[in-house]
Amino acid sequence: MIDKMSQLFVRTLRQDPADAVVPSHRWLVRGGYIRRVAPGIYAWLPLGLRVLAKIEQVVREEMVAIGAQEVSFPALLPREPYEATQRWSDYGPSMFRLHDRTGADYLLGPTHEEMFTLLVKDLYSSYKDLPLILFQVQTKYRDEARPRAGILRGREFIMKDSYSFDLSDEGLAAAYEQHRQAYIKIFDRLGFDYVIVSAMSGAMGGSRSEEFLALSEYGEDTFVRSPGGYAANVEAVQVAPPAPVDPAVMAALPAPRTVLTPGATTIDSLVTAVNQVVAQPERPWTGADTLKNVVLRLTHPDGTTEPLVIGLPGDREVDLKRLEAAVHPADVQPFDEADFARYPALVKGYIGPAELTETGPVAFLGADGSTQLRYLVDPRVVDGTSWITGANVADQHVIGLVAGRDFTADGVIDVAEVREGDPAPDGSGPLELARGVEVGHIFQLGRRYAEALGLQVLNQNGKLETVTMGSYGLGISRAVAMVAERNCDERGLMWPRHLAPYDVIVVSAGKTDEIMTTAERLAAELDGLGLDTVWDDRPVSPGVKFADAELLGFPTIVIVGRGLADGVVEVRDRLAGTKQSVPLADAVAVISQLARVEA
Amino acid sequence: MIDKMSQLFVRTLRQDPADAVVPSHRWLVRGGYIRRVAPGIYAWLPLGLRVLAKIEQVVREEMVAIGAQEVSFPALLPREPYEATQRWSDYGPSMFRLHDRTGADYLLGPTHEEMFTLLVKDLYSSYKDLPLILFQVQTKYRDEARPRAGILRGREFIMKDSYSFDLSDEGLAAAYEQHRQAYIKIFDRLGFDYVIVSAMSGAMGGSRSEEFLALSEYGEDTFVRSPGGYAANVEAVQVAPPAPVDPAVMAALPAPRTVLTPGATTIDSLVTAVNQVVAQPERPWTGADTLKNVVLRLTHPDGTTEPLVIGLPGDREVDLKRLEAAVHPADVQPFDEADFARYPALVKGYIGPAELTETGPVAFLGADGSTQLRYLVDPRVVDGTSWITGANVADQHVIGLVAGRDFTADGVIDVAEVREGDPAPDGSGPLELARGVEVGHIFQLGRRYAEALGLQVLNQNGKLETVTMGSYGLGISRAVAMVAERNCDERGLMWPRHLAPYDVIVVSAGKTDEIMTTAERLAAELDGLGLDTVWDDRPVSPGVKFADAELLGFPTIVIVGRGLADGVVEVRDRLAGTKQSVPLADAVAVISQLARVEA
Repeated sequence: MIDKMSQLFVRTLRQDPADAVVPSHRWLVRGGYIRRVAPGIYAWLPLGLRVLAKIEQVVREEMVAIGAQEVSFPALLPREPYEATQRWSDYGPSMFRLHDRTGADYLLGPTHEEMFTLLVKDLYSSYKDLPLILFQVQTKYRDEARPRAGILRGREFIMKDSYSFDLSDEGLAAAYEQHRQAYIKIFDRLGFDYVIVSAMSGAMGGSRSEEFLALSEYGEDTFVRSPGGYAANVEAVQVAPPAPVDPAVMAALPAPRTVLTPGATTIDSLVTAVNQVVAQPERPWTGADTLKNVVLRLTHPDGTTEPLVIGLPGDREVDLKRLEAAVHPADVQPFDEADFARYPALVKGYIGPAELTETGPVAFLGADGSTQLRYLVDPRVVDGTSWITGANVADQHVIGLVAGRDFTADGVIDVAEVREGDPAPDGSGPLELARGVEVGHIFQLGRRYAEALGLQVLNQNGKLETVTMGSYGLGISRAVAMVAERNCDERGLMWPRHLAPYDVIVVSAGKTDEIMTTAERLAAELDGLGLDTVWDDRPVSPGVKFADAELLGFPTIVIVGRGLADGVVEVRDRLAGTKQSVPLADAVAVISQLARVEA
Repeated sequence: MIDKMSQLFVRTLRQDPADAVVPSHRWLVRGGYIRRVAPGIYAWLPLGLRVLAKIEQVVREEMVAIGAQEVSFPALLPREPYEATQRWSDYGPSMFRLHDRTGADYLLGPTHEEMFTLLVKDLYSSYKDLPLILFQVQTKYRDEARPRAGILRGREFIMKDSYSFDLSDEGLAAAYEQHRQAYIKIFDRLGFDYVIVSAMSGAMGGSRSEEFLALSEYGEDTFVRSPGGYAANVEAVQVAPPAPVDPAVMAALPAPRTVLTPGATTIDSLVTAVNQVVAQPERPWTGADTLKNVVLRLTHPDGTTEPLVIGLPGDREVDLKRLEAAVHPADVQPFDEADFARYPALVKGYIGPAELTETGPVAFLGADGSTQLRYLVDPRVVDGTSWITGANVADQHVIGLVAGRDFTADGVIDVAEVREGDPAPDGSGPLELARGVEVGHIFQLGRRYAEALGLQVLNQNGKLETVTMGSYGLGISRAVAMVAERNCDERGLMWPRHLAPYDVIVVSAGKTDEIMTTAERLAAELDGLGLDTVWDDRPVSPGVKFADAELLGFPTIVIVGRGLADGVVEVRDRLAGTKQSVPLADAVAVISQLARVEA
């Protein structure tokens, strides 16, 4: 029984879906691989499910190869464990929460650290039971604010998540490295062009963490890399601070003074004004000489809010993603008019860390300042650096305000935008910016979850010791999208052979009995050889069939048509873009050789 | 790399879980196959997941064999389609509902009729596209009031659900029959002892419907069967009403009269009282001569409530499950004191359909009665039957009140208990009652969903025609429980070979090098032959290992121990309960023959 296009549950679409902005989304929907059910929520149609299963299998094989054992947790989870680790609140609106009929709180699992920790606590009790790696391939839920790009960033999606359990830090490092190598194998097998970058741990907590980013111009993650091999997610870039200035040198710097800067409420207008009023002989002032102070409102998970002022060189903006990562789990918003109304001491456009008085500068921002507003500065604002900044009086700025001498901050926050050409923190050269899609993320969680949930085992000395954990995610449905994106052209999909839903499509291009019976027989023969074959038997024009065959992207397209009069069929290689006329008698041999080359 | 018990993520428990009431629950938890996460919500551990995958595979093969195509829907679904079919409200508290971050309503899918209907509407448009059968193996959610028995009745569970789409009733009947045959094959392959019974469609709507019930003393479903082959779920039993009495005969029956029955508020005391006051010469009065009137409160999905009075022979109780099925989607509760207080005309213990006045009986219950309370009667209360029933006056009953002459009801409701020995409705003999677990349910939905959601296709005449559908469920996680229940004894599980998580467990009973190396080599050899083999290499006593091996229930247990001195190992067949000493040299041959006999 061969599969026939006339019966296959697939319909190709001539139009892009209205919300399609990335090629994987466009082609997977147009090819009938997936179908939207709600924002960020998709159904898998037969072709999509076949690709999904193949990718799942690649992942499963590599996980089993590192000794991971498969389990499967529910998606519907009780609140209490997530309360114990504070993730119930930390996750904020990204977590789907619900009540059951008794009013008890549940959530749809975004990841399962808590549950795996409790499971191991439940069943294991001794160091002899460790090390242990467990994994699952399971449906996850995150109520994304901006679900987008089809299955690339969904609200219900399929992930492989695994968790390692060790007694020692060395054990954790080894499990982490095993995963790192397994991920390299998996992404190599999936044919991704990817980088491994240092990452922030975000909501997960923990110490070491790396992301696998598949390079993509449509990626939402920006990362940096240097010629010397440095690579990091922008959120994880830690700017190397300049060396602090010698105290004697600092003391000798010119004293701060007020300059009149009427209307100069932007960095550009400030730079223009200062260059006019107090021109430097050696070089003009630039934005980099100014200290910009950005006022924000933090909202903590418990609902309390707090103002925060960030001081950074005026030629840089605050990077929202770096900021969000830095203040997590708090939420952050710009100060609005109502906020400013509550802090009349803040003069918009003229905010600075100090006020100049007759006896010298007096702290304005910071815990010790007159406002007591929390004040954090960019790492570049080291002691001894001199700045042009707001005087906290309308139409006035201060010039020559020296960090560490004239003002101090409450701490450092590294959230300024990272720019192409910035030096790599490790001195490995200028940074290049690129975009990618996070396809994997590995974390050394350490003991945070085990401590919160009491996972201890007896060590070799018979004493209870807290277990250290790793957590390793890999987006399976997202990987389907990335394979599609890597393997498509302007006519549709072009699956790599080992991930394709079908190996071969036999197109009967014509309705004569000879064409139909030859095509069917050929399809049956190929199918009999173990090649997944579909026969396009539909009563539609050859042109429609050719277009569909290219859109669907099965690796080998066989056309049984007019050539049959000369005893030949046409064999096309969708990936290579080649075609050849093959005598009918040789067709099976040629096709099965083609199909197996990379299989 | 063979699997070792020392590393396998499994821990057997010596104690039953506190909430275990059925053997499958007890043994699956004690054997480390599943683990409870929350009420009715379980995690699958490695051994459980292996059995689950094998059962899934059996189901998938038989579905593919009838031409069904696999898709996969999300569990998180938007409200609107379920609103269109009224199931959003009809499902009541059994449906998990939630909001997303924008406040939009979602549900966790209990079944997917709506989604499949919309999918086919989305992609198909012509009669030429039909027939079609789609299926999925997917996680379902129902907020059961009483989750119980482990995975037997969970709140998150795995189901195969399929849906058929046809233009004609004959097409639907054919798809239904295909499913019926596929289910027979599946349940035969799973080794169930099952019956196929007529069923109510419940929340699904639709016409023909049958349940596959696996016989089990722990089953929650009661069904009846007769020697002549009648079989039905008790909810679906339709009592054959007696023939109505000839009007002339009816008119000639004695007139009703009041009898004093002080304190006779129960059927027993009423029968005693009546036999004393107006003894019948031919036979004493029994409960079957009395008409009991039960007052209930219906709550409709929209929250409105309504009283309902059910009249039935006094020797029968209302069967709660039959009642719930009959009034679905309304919820039903007994009338409480507060309810009675609102209807002072109702005299508890003395309620009847009519009041006797000087001019004869006057309607009391029913739309035309003085109370206007809705009144439905058992099918046995046909016109011409004469009853002893309440007089609606304290301490008084009426005798000789004739249905159709002295009172009428608003309709019939068939919710009295069905009893062992009752005649089968089709005349095929006395009914026997038995218990089972619903493992499959097939429905001819008809056009209800297609109409509600507008699924029409062009027919052969170019006119739009509504599609007719079938819906077919099969509980996969529940099937795991039922396989376990069918295959266990007082020592634990005993899996049939084709569903077992491992084929063979090799137990090294002793710690000598010879025993350990022989056991390991034997395990490796068996594994090399393709038998899933685990080696129990743990440093625990042979007694513990034997007990665990029997509890885990892998079909073949090989013991490498003291016998090795004589060159033999012991081979046990867990299912057959047999054991044999086998020369080490023959062990592989003997074991692989054993393992393949039924494989």
